Amino acid sequence: MQETKAQQGTATPVSFFQTKAYAAQDAGAALQPWNLERRNPGPHDVQIDIRYCGVCHTDIHFVRNDLGISVYPLVPGHEIVGVVSKVGDHVQRYKAGDLVGVGCWVDSCRVCDSCNEGEQQYCLNGNTLTYNSVEKETGRMTYGGYAAQIVVNEDFVLRVSDTLSLPGVAPLLCAGITTYSPLRRWKVGKGHRIGIVGLGGLGHMAVKFAAAFGAEVTVLSRSPQKQEDARKLGAHRFALTTDAEQVQKLANYFDFILDTVAVDHDHGAYMGMLKTKGTLICVGIAPEPVVIPMFPLIFQGRQVAGSLVGGIPETQEMLDFCAEHNITADIELIRMSEINEAFTRMERSDVKYRFVIDMASI
Amino acid sequence: MQETKAQQGTATPVSFFQTKAYAAQDAGAALQPWNLERRNPGPHDVQIDIRYCGVCHTDIHFVRNDLGISVYPLVPGHEIVGVVSKVGDHVQRYKAGDLVGVGCWVDSCRVCDSCNEGEQQYCLNGNTLTYNSVEKETGRMTYGGYAAQIVVNEDFVLRVSDTLSLPGVAPLLCAGITTYSPLRRWKVGKGHRIGIVGLGGLGHMAVKFAAAFGAEVTVLSRSPQKQEDARKLGAHRFALTTDAEQVQKLANYFDFILDTVAVDHDHGAYMGMLKTKGTLICVGIAPEPVVIPMFPLIFQGRQVAGSLVGGIPETQEMLDFCAEHNITADIELIRMSEINEAFTRMERSDVKYRFVIDMASI
Repeated sequence: MQETKAQQGTATPVSFFQTKAYAAQDAGAALQPWNLERRNPGPHDVQIDIRYCGVCHTDIHFVRNDLGISVYPLVPGHEIVGVVSKVGDHVQRYKAGDLVGVGCWVDSCRVCDSCNEGEQQYCLNGNTLTYNSVEKETGRMTYGGYAAQIVVNEDFVLRVSDTLSLPGVAPLLCAGITTYSPLRRWKVGKGHRIGIVGLGGLGHMAVKFAAAFGAEVTVLSRSPQKQEDARKLGAHRFALTTDAEQVQKLANYFDFILDTVAVDHDHGAYMGMLKTKGTLICVGIAPEPVVIPMFPLIFQGRQVAGSLVGGIPETQEMLDFCAEHNITADIELIRMSEINEAFTRMERSDVKYRFVIDMASI
Repeated sequence: MQETKAQQGTATPVSFFQTKAYAAQDAGAALQPWNLERRNPGPHDVQIDIRYCGVCHTDIHFVRNDLGISVYPLVPGHEIVGVVSKVGDHVQRYKAGDLVGVGCWVDSCRVCDSCNEGEQQYCLNGNTLTYNSVEKETGRMTYGGYAAQIVVNEDFVLRVSDTLSLPGVAPLLCAGITTYSPLRRWKVGKGHRIGIVGLGGLGHMAVKFAAAFGAEVTVLSRSPQKQEDARKLGAHRFALTTDAEQVQKLANYFDFILDTVAVDHDHGAYMGMLKTKGTLICVGIAPEPVVIPMFPLIFQGRQVAGSLVGGIPETQEMLDFCAEHNITADIELIRMSEINEAFTRMERSDVKYRFVIDMASI
């Protein structure tokens, strides 16, 4: 074990240990094995042996530096489930052996209005991403879940039920909460009609949650072959958005449309399918802006809203809901060494519906 | 009096009378005197001697055929106040001598969900505009309030208090309700900060209402000379949106921004001034779409909404609220013959804040 003083931001010296990880060494590089230094757990930290890590499209964006903010080496992964191996002296909620999860953030300012409301995803002073952020405790970068172990402040650790299949729980930490949160914010449920755009990692979770909440769920897709899958996942209806007649039949139909597509597309095309005062909720982040024609927006008093993942309390609520209702993601389990191939397959939407890395294979 | 059978849509013959009006005879033409035929009041109709009619920017769009749907001759005007001169046999709520108003619609389908909820502006089967729509009773076109008299079904007639200055009431029927309705829908009031974009006919009413509801009101403008006016109208703050420093200080500041600008502009520029989950409400209809960058939308869970005028019950509520709180529009009274000059002045935003035609001058 190597002992190194932290560069900045801590009163007491921080020591480190090494753990196996997969990292991109620069924007053009494939992910490769890398020995990563983690801080040893401080008084409020939880050390976790990672069992599974989901593969989110955001991981690809960061590995490829699509947002222009990547710092290398970069270890992606923010859909983490594992077992607590060690806890700091002041940790109250977790003990060795507990099943836990870690999502997109490992810290936030903890004092702003958003943090006070448990919505750390909207922290106004800058929160700490699970990877590619500056770690407050050390001044070093944070590294994500494509690794054997991680150390996280207990306030950003979630409790995971042992009643669920663990690989399928991992994607709940991002894809799950990203769709659960807006459905809860807008109280989607019985008596509502919702359209889900994009049947990928996020979309398939949105179908499961919206159906579980009692809404009538329609999958809106350009691919006729998704119809069968949509029904299997719990959707009540399917509409081919390339078919003008089907689209016409859905005029003023939906209370909500949840758009999970993370590439550029025509958001405005969905406005006419919304009821008066209906809401198009965007959770997929694409490079180009959302373009909404004036008339369908104003003449039926409709809305377009954004929603980002979810806060810590709501993520715990979502995990508990999933345990109670036996909801997990549909996944394809891969070995760590297959990650680069998995990225390539994801880029052509060839995954049902989330790759999850078996971290025993690292 | 000329007796003519209606072309369509009525079981009993309809007779007509002539009244003075100002009409555009085609898209390039100035408004000129024109003798207009109105239907004689049917059993449920109210005949109104028009006292004042507000001049809305929409009138210009229709006269100029900016939307490509104008039918000529065209008589604009949908901010109408007057005195009931005659009522049909079955009219319950009004009698000769009553002060009344008529807004943007004179009928709707009356059976759809929107109509059932009293939101005739969102009628799903097509409502009847006060001008340039097909009149159900006659099959002819509807003609607006730039006229000495109008006949309207009692369900689309509003009661006007005699405690208010009548010329200042006229613009409440469109500019007033268009800003009142979204402020009520989103329950804007005490503890809220709202920004008002555009200090024209709509914007100046928005300032008055938002202040009356107890919100902290900021006028957002590109014109420093509007600061003084903003305060006089009841705004608590003023920010020059051309000044980057002032804009920076308003980052994450507003719960709501009400955008009343009816020409193309950058709606996305206001997103960063909204708090987490804040809402940009668009009531100004411009030709180009609303373009919203992804990051400010999703990363703070913000919303963009449209709102169109208001329904009949809410318009009555607004008129009653105005009577109770002594709220009217700030207006410049003109003679009917000055209408073409008024249009020209409006096109360079040279009006404080609404022209109102004194119909005694027709």
